[in-house]
Amino acid sequence: MKTKQLIYKLHSTDGQARRGEVHTAHGSFQTPAFMPVGTYGAVKSVSPQHLNELGAEIVLSNTYHLMQRPGVEVIKAHGGLHEFMGWNKPILTDSGGYQVFSLAKKRKITEKGVTFNSPLNGDRLFLSPESCMQLQLNYGVDIAMVLDECTPYPVKKEVAATSMELSLRWAQRCRDSFVSANSSLFGIIQGGVFSDLRDESLAKLTAMDFEGYAIGGLSVGESKSELREIVSYIAPKMPAEYPRYLMGVGTPLDIVEAVEQGVDMFDCVIPTRHARNGYLYTSHGVIKIRNSQYKNDLDPLDSQCSCYTCNNFSRSYLHHLDKTKEMLGSTLNTIHNLHFYLNLMQDLRGAIETGTLQAFVGKFKETWNNLKDPNINRE
Amino acid sequence: MKTKQLIYKLHSTDGQARRGEVHTAHGSFQTPAFMPVGTYGAVKSVSPQHLNELGAEIVLSNTYHLMQRPGVEVIKAHGGLHEFMGWNKPILTDSGGYQVFSLAKKRKITEKGVTFNSPLNGDRLFLSPESCMQLQLNYGVDIAMVLDECTPYPVKKEVAATSMELSLRWAQRCRDSFVSANSSLFGIIQGGVFSDLRDESLAKLTAMDFEGYAIGGLSVGESKSELREIVSYIAPKMPAEYPRYLMGVGTPLDIVEAVEQGVDMFDCVIPTRHARNGYLYTSHGVIKIRNSQYKNDLDPLDSQCSCYTCNNFSRSYLHHLDKTKEMLGSTLNTIHNLHFYLNLMQDLRGAIETGTLQAFVGKFKETWNNLKDPNINRE
Repeated sequence: MKTKQLIYKLHSTDGQARRGEVHTAHGSFQTPAFMPVGTYGAVKSVSPQHLNELGAEIVLSNTYHLMQRPGVEVIKAHGGLHEFMGWNKPILTDSGGYQVFSLAKKRKITEKGVTFNSPLNGDRLFLSPESCMQLQLNYGVDIAMVLDECTPYPVKKEVAATSMELSLRWAQRCRDSFVSANSSLFGIIQGGVFSDLRDESLAKLTAMDFEGYAIGGLSVGESKSELREIVSYIAPKMPAEYPRYLMGVGTPLDIVEAVEQGVDMFDCVIPTRHARNGYLYTSHGVIKIRNSQYKNDLDPLDSQCSCYTCNNFSRSYLHHLDKTKEMLGSTLNTIHNLHFYLNLMQDLRGAIETGTLQAFVGKFKETWNNLKDPNINRE
Repeated sequence: MKTKQLIYKLHSTDGQARRGEVHTAHGSFQTPAFMPVGTYGAVKSVSPQHLNELGAEIVLSNTYHLMQRPGVEVIKAHGGLHEFMGWNKPILTDSGGYQVFSLAKKRKITEKGVTFNSPLNGDRLFLSPESCMQLQLNYGVDIAMVLDECTPYPVKKEVAATSMELSLRWAQRCRDSFVSANSSLFGIIQGGVFSDLRDESLAKLTAMDFEGYAIGGLSVGESKSELREIVSYIAPKMPAEYPRYLMGVGTPLDIVEAVEQGVDMFDCVIPTRHARNGYLYTSHGVIKIRNSQYKNDLDPLDSQCSCYTCNNFSRSYLHHLDKTKEMLGSTLNTIHNLHFYLNLMQDLRGAIETGTLQAFVGKFKETWNNLKDPNINRE
């Protein structure tokens, strides 16, 4: 049964790119939007206060991780994930499909669902489409994701097709069992790098009538050109009246290119994980703050940046915090990298509004095209 | 040469206890005051923004640690420690006397100073009264401390006397070489647990005319009753027109008792270090948040506490952050424990102002007298 809690409003377009807004039971967020990743109900090394100050409007958390720690009962007792983590704006949870396939041990997939061992304590756990929906409903999130099988890469087309078909049957079961007055459900397009499989997945999901659609099964090892190809092939075909979400992607350049293709929502661990490793985004490229060249560098990370870190601290100080393993370093670095990502989204939204996206992207690529970002995307 | 940058104003007294204010080149702080410890130019796991929101008015940093990392030249290049660490309120630096004796390897003391190996890289380092003053002047701190020999515990009286006398000769050299328009210098009373040695140390330091006086050489292994005895013996005798600082002490109860004896300033790693270990102070006693009893506890740490952590998060969430090793847990715990300490100081100041200190202390002791705090005080 479908509830109409989630409303997507399209404000304007520039080419395929869309400038919009998503309304949820916990308020609205502007799109294209980046969702900081809070796997365990906490965005690593920053507080909800920091996230609010940074202008984050939605965060992502994870069904797979939360079901193990703290467990659904603890979250339910709080009245939901918002109350548990002290965040009163929208939350989206990934279904755990990706994590079961990338993190869990001894997994066994049947038509019914997936059984796997908890990496924490070896407990035998089970996730079915129905139980996955029940978990996310108990978390009380604004946007839940269907349980899917994340097709590995590379695989033969027959394998990708079989996997995609299982995901479709699971999607229907998710749709059927998801009943909520406040939470909405997104379908996830699978099909690997095969465009006709992606088409089929999209068509059948659209017939199930979700409140949003996501491109899944990427950031699993495919090349940048394959990623680009799939996104540019399928994104413009996704229903225009619903939000389009590219899961687990990506680098700033990946995001810019996907926005050009009409994607509205993104999540990725890159800004937060890179921050903890001292890999910092600036308007002139990446700074690896651990490098000794920054020991005496009195400049802020980015003189054009208005974040708390750049307003108050030098590269030299951030280098020092890294060297002395002060946790404050992770916090300040994370604030900066999240500001970079959220600010990029704001710039992209502005460029779409003013019909200047092409010029913006051209300029952005001058800086970023040659940068090789490590491809670490999801936890 | 003595400069009169630091002004102590006594507002009121209640018994021996003093309610006052200290003016420095970077503004004033109210006394009795607690100084959060920022050993490496950062209070562990909180930002200057957090410290400002908590109402911290002065922080402590450390000559010994900063001379090794980042090194004095880096701090000097920033224009001083305030600019380096993004903190524009008063800073006091410990001289490193305590740390040389507790942390450094292969130390060799001569009349001239102390030579020791850096625990970081084995570099042979040298600290003399003159170089120690020069370091602190280059840091540009508001309050510098003389270099002293921290007398170990237990020692025979002759050893304590010899050590105290060396500290006195070093104090005179510190006084002679410390020339500043903005920074002030405090003398440190030594003499171990021997009251007549403490008397002699105080008398001779007072004759050197410092801008404040500290009780040093405690929190080195002596018993609580010895600590109490020395503080109650010497604190009331310290010059009334200058701030009185008890170094490296202590638990909430230690602080309350020392305030009763007329001490004005405190520093200790207890609130911040305990926080990182999940050992949290509340108005009803200590909560060890790691304990499984808190897994489902929906209450805030302390329903009477107004800190960010207690306003927004449950014990259950803090337990979860500890279990999942989320850095945010350290930050939220540190905010809470520092709030507890800073709030305690505010309560003590209020009680002195209204002449109700005895009643306040009586009530406080009902809660805290039986609590055994691990005695970890300085880094």
